[in-house]
Amino acid sequence: MTDKFLLHEYSASGNCYKVRLTAAMVGVPLERREYDIMKGETRRPVFLERVNPNGRIPVLQVGTRFIPESNAACYFIAEGSGLIPTDPFDHADMLHWMFWEQYNHEPNIATLRFWMRFLKPENLNDIQRLQMPGKRQAGNAALKLMDDHLDGRDWFIGESPTLADICLFAYTHVAGDADFDLQRYPHVVRWMERLKGQPRYQAMDA
Amino acid sequence: MTDKFLLHEYSASGNCYKVRLTAAMVGVPLERREYDIMKGETRRPVFLERVNPNGRIPVLQVGTRFIPESNAACYFIAEGSGLIPTDPFDHADMLHWMFWEQYNHEPNIATLRFWMRFLKPENLNDIQRLQMPGKRQAGNAALKLMDDHLDGRDWFIGESPTLADICLFAYTHVAGDADFDLQRYPHVVRWMERLKGQPRYQAMDA
Repeated sequence: MTDKFLLHEYSASGNCYKVRLTAAMVGVPLERREYDIMKGETRRPVFLERVNPNGRIPVLQVGTRFIPESNAACYFIAEGSGLIPTDPFDHADMLHWMFWEQYNHEPNIATLRFWMRFLKPENLNDIQRLQMPGKRQAGNAALKLMDDHLDGRDWFIGESPTLADICLFAYTHVAGDADFDLQRYPHVVRWMERLKGQPRYQAMDA
Repeated sequence: MTDKFLLHEYSASGNCYKVRLTAAMVGVPLERREYDIMKGETRRPVFLERVNPNGRIPVLQVGTRFIPESNAACYFIAEGSGLIPTDPFDHADMLHWMFWEQYNHEPNIATLRFWMRFLKPENLNDIQRLQMPGKRQAGNAALKLMDDHLDGRDWFIGESPTLADICLFAYTHVAGDADFDLQRYPHVVRWMERLKGQPRYQAMDA
């Protein structure tokens, strides 16, 4: 008997959406528990002690065990499915894009989205404000790199969607929230439409 | 016949050392090609076009294919070895620590080390200087989280070293370069000694 999956999340987070989209794509049911990160609900002792000492969501709970880090949770859910290539090189290439997403994409695009739409510009401190131009430039560089890679390709690796596509889609498709102009990246736009056309696709607000 | 492995690297980078340490631990020979990142050698057209459009090292070359992102390269080299747990939960837990390393540890500890010892404090711009206190605090929080996790554990996951240990060791063991006081984290210190005592351990300057 398999333990059920419980997602500890803040549903407007792209990192949490990734995990839901992965579960939808492989047809795995997911229970959800919402935390208001704007009220610091993931920094309280009960969360730090029981769910994640790092104070962050998402965390995937499987029975009595917990998996923090969105991309690790996606991997666990998709294990054995077609979303994870079996060829060792393709598999490493998928991980490459997933690590790249967390290092080069998320800290720029997701952070700007969070600052502009959730914290709100008037509440930013000086250090945040000073970092905005650099994050905008790095976010556009990330989108450009994706666009170049997708020129002539349907998916990031191989001939069908993998976790690389799902993990990169999550914050890319809401990059407009941070005033990124996605129309500058036509291959990215077509790739997003392709993913949205998948039979089991589930929207962020579903 | 297996393609040989060629590591495109800057040898003082902890991200490059990870890949060498993984290869040493599994007994795989690795050729090395050095680039001087201080002279921008990974931002030149020949590197961007041929090795990595993201302009970063390390990149693992396997025949005619290239794997950027240190942790993905480590995974490819260690595939099928005891450094990667076969249990799906332990495997996801290993990935959790590897993603955590790239998101919570490297951007603080490795970046401070790079700014302080390679760029040098007198060459930092205002945005970098203003970020230093935040990175120091976040770096210490990362070391504290590791120390708490290692209290009562020999390794990050299970009873033997995995890629999580190797990937976290790389920048932790040189955190002193960025003036982090590792003596405040005794479980981390003992864990580092444990890793250094492994039969195939190879030092950063080897």
